Amino acid sequence: MTDQAFSDDERAAVYRAITERRDMRHFSGGTVAPELLARLLEAAHHAPSVGLMQPWRFIRISDRQLRGGIQAQVEEERIRTAQALGERSDDFMRLKVEGINDCAEVLVAALMDDREKHIFGRRTLPEMDLASLSCAIQNLWLAARAEGLGMGWVSLFDPPALAELLGMPPGAKPLAILCLGPVAEFYPQPMLVMEGWAQARPLNELVYENRWGVHP
Amino acid sequence: MTDQAFSDDERAAVYRAITERRDMRHFSGGTVAPELLARLLEAAHHAPSVGLMQPWRFIRISDRQLRGGIQAQVEEERIRTAQALGERSDDFMRLKVEGINDCAEVLVAALMDDREKHIFGRRTLPEMDLASLSCAIQNLWLAARAEGLGMGWVSLFDPPALAELLGMPPGAKPLAILCLGPVAEFYPQPMLVMEGWAQARPLNELVYENRWGVHP
Repeated sequence: MTDQAFSDDERAAVYRAITERRDMRHFSGGTVAPELLARLLEAAHHAPSVGLMQPWRFIRISDRQLRGGIQAQVEEERIRTAQALGERSDDFMRLKVEGINDCAEVLVAALMDDREKHIFGRRTLPEMDLASLSCAIQNLWLAARAEGLGMGWVSLFDPPALAELLGMPPGAKPLAILCLGPVAEFYPQPMLVMEGWAQARPLNELVYENRWGVHP
Repeated sequence: MTDQAFSDDERAAVYRAITERRDMRHFSGGTVAPELLARLLEAAHHAPSVGLMQPWRFIRISDRQLRGGIQAQVEEERIRTAQALGERSDDFMRLKVEGINDCAEVLVAALMDDREKHIFGRRTLPEMDLASLSCAIQNLWLAARAEGLGMGWVSLFDPPALAELLGMPPGAKPLAILCLGPVAEFYPQPMLVMEGWAQARPLNELVYENRWGVHP
């Protein structure tokens, strides 16, 4: 048996990326060099995927007018979400929930069309395609943090409307508007904790042994 | 503006974890020390989650008989999947799709119950809870690779049957049986590529600019 572990320094770097990654809404403009963007997308592309279906598709939004159209869709959903939240509506409206107009790059991450034929690992869990895409986005996020770039995942949009705006075929589905780019600083804690929106729960409450609700 | 990037060595370590992570089915027994398992679960717990809902729950399976029951459920679904695959049925049955009986630790990752009240970021995309759990699993996977441990995500099971076996409440849903532990070696490429099940597609086919199907 060989020792497959990373060196202590390498291991620490992986944990650093995991713990210092943040869902960013504040960006400082700038640009992302094409070769850097390519590295980040390759990191996403190295994600696991169920039955190797590689269901991820990425649309880079380089057209400023199109970016404005995407931001307008998010703003519409932000207001609808506030209405749905009822008594927390005002608190929600005070939060900054996206940095679409301020970030260097906007990417839309989507599920491919024609997914029904992929049965391996999905017969009882068809949503495994979405799980694979999410792993790809997490890879991109961690790589971006290592590169010193912030990223935010915006899910406040109407999927059919965004799909139509970007010319997606039937069956394809957008899952994320990703804001990417330089930031002045990374939040020391998740922004929703800092803003008092939610409290993080300790891990031990969420780990069971052999049976739901039974803590080790 | 501060330079937020990692050092070259740190950055390389993050990319190494991303590119050398594999979906493992071959394990070499052994154990995972409790403090190491705790580090891995903390890495998962550092994942992003929509509206900070932290929808992940992890059930550690320490009971060998229960592990056997889980493996039996997977075997049932493996046969059903083979039947559903039609002409690729025999090829599929030759693949090793899980290492439940050989790995050091089995964890079941699940979505919590009572998710409907979480509206932030989920009004139009309720499946964002599943996306958050998937990011947590990817964190765990990358941390495991850095620690020299293999992990495999098994999705061949019937969610209601597994939920019942583990005493999950209505609304909770298992998404992954995670096999974790020492391995003799990591596959140099995804196992499904090595076995000829599927070919990986190059990234450039999956990246568009401004509109679906339009390559940069």
